[in-house]
Amino acid sequence: MHAPAIQYDSDHAASSAGWLFLREIRDQPAALERLLEQAAEIATLGEALAARRPRLVRLVAHGSSDNAAAYGVYAFGLLAGWTAVRDSISLPVYYGASVRFDDSTVLALSQSGSTPDVVAYVEHARARGAFTVAVTNEPASPLAEAAHAVLFLAAGEERAIAATKTYTNQLAALALLAAAVGGRGGSLARDIARLADQLARALDPLEAAVLPIADALVDAVRMFVVGRGAEFASARETALKLVETCRVAAVPLTATDLVHGPVAALEPLFPVWAIASDDATLPAVATAVRRARETGAPVIACGSAAGALDGASHRLPTPVAPIPVLAPLLTAAPGQLFAWALARAKGLDPDRPSHLTKVTLTP
Amino acid sequence: MHAPAIQYDSDHAASSAGWLFLREIRDQPAALERLLEQAAEIATLGEALAARRPRLVRLVAHGSSDNAAAYGVYAFGLLAGWTAVRDSISLPVYYGASVRFDDSTVLALSQSGSTPDVVAYVEHARARGAFTVAVTNEPASPLAEAAHAVLFLAAGEERAIAATKTYTNQLAALALLAAAVGGRGGSLARDIARLADQLARALDPLEAAVLPIADALVDAVRMFVVGRGAEFASARETALKLVETCRVAAVPLTATDLVHGPVAALEPLFPVWAIASDDATLPAVATAVRRARETGAPVIACGSAAGALDGASHRLPTPVAPIPVLAPLLTAAPGQLFAWALARAKGLDPDRPSHLTKVTLTP
Repeated sequence: MHAPAIQYDSDHAASSAGWLFLREIRDQPAALERLLEQAAEIATLGEALAARRPRLVRLVAHGSSDNAAAYGVYAFGLLAGWTAVRDSISLPVYYGASVRFDDSTVLALSQSGSTPDVVAYVEHARARGAFTVAVTNEPASPLAEAAHAVLFLAAGEERAIAATKTYTNQLAALALLAAAVGGRGGSLARDIARLADQLARALDPLEAAVLPIADALVDAVRMFVVGRGAEFASARETALKLVETCRVAAVPLTATDLVHGPVAALEPLFPVWAIASDDATLPAVATAVRRARETGAPVIACGSAAGALDGASHRLPTPVAPIPVLAPLLTAAPGQLFAWALARAKGLDPDRPSHLTKVTLTP
Repeated sequence: MHAPAIQYDSDHAASSAGWLFLREIRDQPAALERLLEQAAEIATLGEALAARRPRLVRLVAHGSSDNAAAYGVYAFGLLAGWTAVRDSISLPVYYGASVRFDDSTVLALSQSGSTPDVVAYVEHARARGAFTVAVTNEPASPLAEAAHAVLFLAAGEERAIAATKTYTNQLAALALLAAAVGGRGGSLARDIARLADQLARALDPLEAAVLPIADALVDAVRMFVVGRGAEFASARETALKLVETCRVAAVPLTATDLVHGPVAALEPLFPVWAIASDDATLPAVATAVRRARETGAPVIACGSAAGALDGASHRLPTPVAPIPVLAPLLTAAPGQLFAWALARAKGLDPDRPSHLTKVTLTP
């Protein structure tokens, strides 16, 4: 068993800026365990999907949920051998394009279940023959009502405006669903249980480790966040946390795209966050880091291969995931914690991003 | 007929920083006309695609070509009624995932035809039954050799490191191909010919109009670039030009995603570039602009509806495209010209981005 995930009395957390955000980051191992209580329902849903044999899985979402969708492409590709894509919402919803849906399964992701154009997409796709699933933390939401089936995230109430535990549970839910389709849901649930323990043990050391890095980079207003393959989801999500809570213009880039052009922007005041997991994409990430270092840009490396990357200025190693496809469930946390620490170092309150409310209802 | 697209003797262009980049921006109308000379071949290719009736069009690329692929999703959705997606290169190439290719057509985009993992993807997909097309400016390239068919971009030699005319010709080529699939290639070719004339007439006024905006925003190091639907391709491409040539950390966001979270980062020193075309996505863009203005962020609006956006600080109106799906062929140019002007205002040479070469051969 791991340590209690919520420690209300921590010195730097209680009654101070970013307390909600940090509490929910720390709650992620427990949130994963709550999701695992839904494993039987998810397995049944996966069997229903498998029986339909859709030609295409269409993932639709905005914001952090869209970053989870980017992971879903890899979860379904690797665990089910299915083609899943982040689909255009605009084509059917705004442009009225005639898209073929009868051979498609739609997975619509929204923490609140209230994102208007995601709901509209589901209604449109369902009316045209798609099987539709709402992946949401709110089972009594418009999205859940619109879809054929609901995959309940069970993350617990998320009060911080910047999503954390709902994001991680979206990744786990997509992996569980894809594994159920591929006939290996049981072993994947056990892997996620192990990973929840790994994450619980990793959070305290990571929380301590991000503080001096945030102090060193307190003046950064531009960053690139680099990953490749399945880890590009963590790159997108880390960048979004930095944008929302730190006012950093953080651009997510695949390792290959960095080398293709944006490396031209780098200089010593323009840091790079690199996600390096020990999988087949590591050589591409290592090349990107080497090129970034040649410009004098500081490089913060996280991931299971962070220790192996030549020239990183700062390292935040994360555990080796039970199976490689689950690595992004561990590499989001260092980015969340760094965003929390950097916001505080900058004198911002990550619990109170300007101009935002938790649920976005505008088009 | 339009004015000569290349004016070597322009005061601020000849023998000065950014001359190559500007020359190629100005060459875009002529480049489009060169592409139109290939219209018969593209129509034949479109008929071959239509005869195969693929279930899925898989677009693969990096950098500017990947931004063109984002447009291809809309070109095929709107002109052919087909589902096209920006596919993961990593899944088959790095992870060896077993992806079903026998019902797919692959469009692989690379200006140079030399991007290694794009070539590897084509070889992999072709060996597994996909019909493969190289969309390239180099018909004697590894990519062209690997694919079943070549769609030659005919943009003319592109010497500036930051792509411009090859990008615009990629958009036009994808639109021509999708229209040919949809049985309307002839009328679309006429529309593109009209658009080339519109673009030729628009370039001089746009070039004059970006200069004072660049002076006003010379200190900007962070930007958001916002579009929605088909115009998200122009948002991605404008952001990439700003990153490569101006060292601005420019984050492309859909209008809806801006409101969903990143609006929290905005402030008077954090400008927003908004692409507003007069189509069904305009209300979403107008909402995003209104929310951005509430933060005090300067907003530069381009597109055919730039004049209609309340509160924009600067406007760069572009012509109304002959048909709405072609609008992104007109909204890339203001972003290219602004990147050229801003780089010069910052004392950078947009022809010589640091740390880059024209062809990227690393993984």
